[in-house]
Amino acid sequence: MEKKKCIGVDIGGTSVKLGLFEKDGTLIFKWEVPTRKEEGGRYILEDVADSIRRVLIEKEIHKDEIVGAGMGVPGPVMPDGYVEVCVNLGWHDLNPQKVLSDLLDGIPVKSGNDANVAALGEMWQGGGMGYTDIVMVTLGTGVGGGVIIDEKIIAGKHGLAGEIGHIHVRDEETEHCNCGGVGCLEQVASATGIAREARRKMKATDTPSALRKFGDDVTAKDVLDEAKNGDDLALEVVETVGRYLGLVLAQLAMTVDPQMFVIGGGVSKAGQFLIDVIDKYYRHYTPISENKAVIGLAKLGNDAGIYGAARLVLD
Amino acid sequence: MEKKKCIGVDIGGTSVKLGLFEKDGTLIFKWEVPTRKEEGGRYILEDVADSIRRVLIEKEIHKDEIVGAGMGVPGPVMPDGYVEVCVNLGWHDLNPQKVLSDLLDGIPVKSGNDANVAALGEMWQGGGMGYTDIVMVTLGTGVGGGVIIDEKIIAGKHGLAGEIGHIHVRDEETEHCNCGGVGCLEQVASATGIAREARRKMKATDTPSALRKFGDDVTAKDVLDEAKNGDDLALEVVETVGRYLGLVLAQLAMTVDPQMFVIGGGVSKAGQFLIDVIDKYYRHYTPISENKAVIGLAKLGNDAGIYGAARLVLD
Repeated sequence: MEKKKCIGVDIGGTSVKLGLFEKDGTLIFKWEVPTRKEEGGRYILEDVADSIRRVLIEKEIHKDEIVGAGMGVPGPVMPDGYVEVCVNLGWHDLNPQKVLSDLLDGIPVKSGNDANVAALGEMWQGGGMGYTDIVMVTLGTGVGGGVIIDEKIIAGKHGLAGEIGHIHVRDEETEHCNCGGVGCLEQVASATGIAREARRKMKATDTPSALRKFGDDVTAKDVLDEAKNGDDLALEVVETVGRYLGLVLAQLAMTVDPQMFVIGGGVSKAGQFLIDVIDKYYRHYTPISENKAVIGLAKLGNDAGIYGAARLVLD
Repeated sequence: MEKKKCIGVDIGGTSVKLGLFEKDGTLIFKWEVPTRKEEGGRYILEDVADSIRRVLIEKEIHKDEIVGAGMGVPGPVMPDGYVEVCVNLGWHDLNPQKVLSDLLDGIPVKSGNDANVAALGEMWQGGGMGYTDIVMVTLGTGVGGGVIIDEKIIAGKHGLAGEIGHIHVRDEETEHCNCGGVGCLEQVASATGIAREARRKMKATDTPSALRKFGDDVTAKDVLDEAKNGDDLALEVVETVGRYLGLVLAQLAMTVDPQMFVIGGGVSKAGQFLIDVIDKYYRHYTPISENKAVIGLAKLGNDAGIYGAARLVLD
């Protein structure tokens, strides 16, 4: 029987997202199961395997039709799939791709870090579709990244590849980042970073601003909405965010030189307005050539992980 | 006949370096020919082919023993070997790997940008020997770079990969870099940048310094020599250089996460003294993990290009 379907598994701290795909990238069916984190997360992979088995029966799909299953893990994954520790799931000293493969009667399973896997998904069927070399930047609670070259994830040799949220960009920063650094990109360009930047600007100046009504509860969305409305203080914050993001994209262009930068995560809902600000600074920091990667928006939202995971097993 | 030898060609603006290698990396013979740049560099590849043919006859090596020839080109090379323009050689609209292959009766020829090819050479038989993932940083008249992942060059989709000399690092810079940017790494960390930094510091302060006897003729070597002697002003310059280099290596660790950074070029003759300063700042900017790439010295000097070129045809 010709193998023509694949499964994507995206393991998150609250729920596991799963998707059944045609090899051409068509999503046939997607579903979720809760992430049972008790007892060191020992039930997570059993739940995943049970659920996959049930869906295959339900959909009358024979195991032999399945190329394999890919899996995104919320933490560092070694090249052979080994996970030393995954704090979000309670895993220690585990090779989840081996375990899941055994639980699924030997179906091939491949795994990767979830941010990297999401980047692969966006390359395959999302904002980066049609390209082979992209860097995805996810602007959420934190800032994550994934580097895809020749349709493959650059995972790095110590699980650090794509950790672009922790690139140092700001010398004048005084607070510490979660990573222990001071002045990381994440401290300015994440949703929490943008809100903090707005609070700081409100305190440091008397500039009238529509943001003041939110006080300390101001969110990144408020900042981007009011910036679109032309609010001066909000615009200043967005310029700061765009400048540091543009700077880091310029560094990436002069390191791996992809075809496209794909911007995703909650903050990217601000859309082309935000892209335009990032692009202005990106161009400012790359006068070396006009011929370089373009910047655009991610398209798959929370599904990027299942798409990328499914794509993992198609190599 | 088993093919077990390969040829490396490193085309420079003044001379072409060539090397005949065993597949295991042993250099059998190396030689040079002048680079004839007249008439748009039209004789360069003919000279290379003639010279290779002569050496093979001299050494009594049959063409069938040769796996192929690799070639480093001093400018951007497209993935198919196409060179739009190479100002250093006078080439326009040429596919030199195709031309050289034709001139050598169909021997396979592969090519790449010379900085990237040198990085591959250092990975194969130089400072990065034993590793598969390295980033090389060449501190010479300019600052060049090459990114090697899984034993392959990341060439980029627009010829920009590894152009780390033009990463913006210094907001307070006022002079322009050759690339059109302001505050590029190259403006601080190249031999010319280091000398300029020393001249600036001498003018800006009255600090007594052994460098003052050199006046405006001070060189990067003078700066590094006097820093080793404990000269305060020279040490300040080296700290500045090391800080920006450490910052960029940290960015690279959080982008492609190699096993090793290999530092080469004339400035790297300062040896472990310079590495230690870079390493101090590199660690400062990567608190996220202790488990990360090490920093060491290049070993092949000007031969890195022929080694890397020969390695190109072994995939």
